[in-house]
Amino acid sequence: MGSAYIDDREFAQYCHFNWGENLLGVPNFPEICVKSAIEYMKKRPKRKAFDVGCTVGRSSFELARVFDEVIGVDLSARLVLEAQRLKESGLLRYAIPTEGELQESFQVRLNKFGLEHASKKVNFWQADACNLKPIFRDFDLVFASNLIERLYDPKSFLKDIRTRICEGGLLVLTSSYDWQEETTPKERWIGGYKRDGKSVTTLCGLEEILSSDFKLLDTKEIPFVIRKTERTHRYTVAQMSVWERL
Amino acid sequence: MGSAYIDDREFAQYCHFNWGENLLGVPNFPEICVKSAIEYMKKRPKRKAFDVGCTVGRSSFELARVFDEVIGVDLSARLVLEAQRLKESGLLRYAIPTEGELQESFQVRLNKFGLEHASKKVNFWQADACNLKPIFRDFDLVFASNLIERLYDPKSFLKDIRTRICEGGLLVLTSSYDWQEETTPKERWIGGYKRDGKSVTTLCGLEEILSSDFKLLDTKEIPFVIRKTERTHRYTVAQMSVWERL
Repeated sequence: MGSAYIDDREFAQYCHFNWGENLLGVPNFPEICVKSAIEYMKKRPKRKAFDVGCTVGRSSFELARVFDEVIGVDLSARLVLEAQRLKESGLLRYAIPTEGELQESFQVRLNKFGLEHASKKVNFWQADACNLKPIFRDFDLVFASNLIERLYDPKSFLKDIRTRICEGGLLVLTSSYDWQEETTPKERWIGGYKRDGKSVTTLCGLEEILSSDFKLLDTKEIPFVIRKTERTHRYTVAQMSVWERL
Repeated sequence: MGSAYIDDREFAQYCHFNWGENLLGVPNFPEICVKSAIEYMKKRPKRKAFDVGCTVGRSSFELARVFDEVIGVDLSARLVLEAQRLKESGLLRYAIPTEGELQESFQVRLNKFGLEHASKKVNFWQADACNLKPIFRDFDLVFASNLIERLYDPKSFLKDIRTRICEGGLLVLTSSYDWQEETTPKERWIGGYKRDGKSVTTLCGLEEILSSDFKLLDTKEIPFVIRKTERTHRYTVAQMSVWERL
């Protein structure tokens, strides 16, 4: 999920992360994650999906290939605006720095991804994942990719989200578990600390919070690459965890 | 080259970058670069090598496998101190964050790298690459890895370094050309900008500055990985350029 304010450089990184070519031999992350989430859905109903932290919309559009309706939300008004614009115009433009202030320009066309039809089933809204309006409910799937480690109160998001998922529906999370004090006060980290001398990993923390309402179906390691310049990248291995609403 | 002040997290990243295991299938960068630099030396005399921006010393120690004497310098007093300590004690300890505040501890022993003997030929000094003392001279090889893009005045370093290299000796640079205004004022970038509407790459800029005293022998792409946490990395493809002193 984008933070409230996104500068041009971050915006371009989000765009390329969503819509860019494969980098370093690593497949497009939103596309791969949605494919995986849909496989986990199996024969469950695929009426409504909720994409929390949707940035510029790739995962929301991909979900709309199979869901009847998709709602994508992000904290960043700019990202939501650009995602909605992409839906309406079918076009997104951005530029990535190659070296110093030199840049390479990119154009995304929804029809090149075969997403013109799917895009009609998607809508984007600006929203705070830790303080969601009641209207967001009755989802068969909640997809929250690289979100929890950027929230100011991840536990409140996780506690609240159960009320929005239909019985038997899925919550699919991905995270690098890369907690930062600047975004999440330490006392609100879900894991990545010691308690009584023992290491509490984020996966353990998630189980503590979610186990009363969810069953952990599976976890999976999925790498992603964010291109920063022509030569520099962020390479992350995220963990996907798949939770069934009891 | 480390900046003047290095915190614990950066220190650990430098340590692992120098001495860590292969990551993401990418071989150890200082080791590979020095091997490559030594190949370019061919039958040239291998008396004295200068490792500018040596951080915690891996490249300096590797150079000492074949050179009679190696001097490693860095702007960071902390890195120089730790490199010198490693030379004297044969031991280096550091810890890398895995998730949140959880850490994994590492120990480096010079003898496991077969470097006990080589280390006797190396000395480390704190120095500013843009303002080097006259004592640093008469080198058969100057190795400056991931340095120029972090200097406040890269041109003055490059103009000065020619006086310190023996005729026929080599200058070996590696860089991501990832110029940042915080470290290098824009008017001092060597490339990565437009001039008269045309893109000036850093390699072009290097040729403009160096060509009166050096011949460009070769360039080569070499990737490196910096581990930040268990799941997050910086993945960079540096360009090595090899210059012969005329």
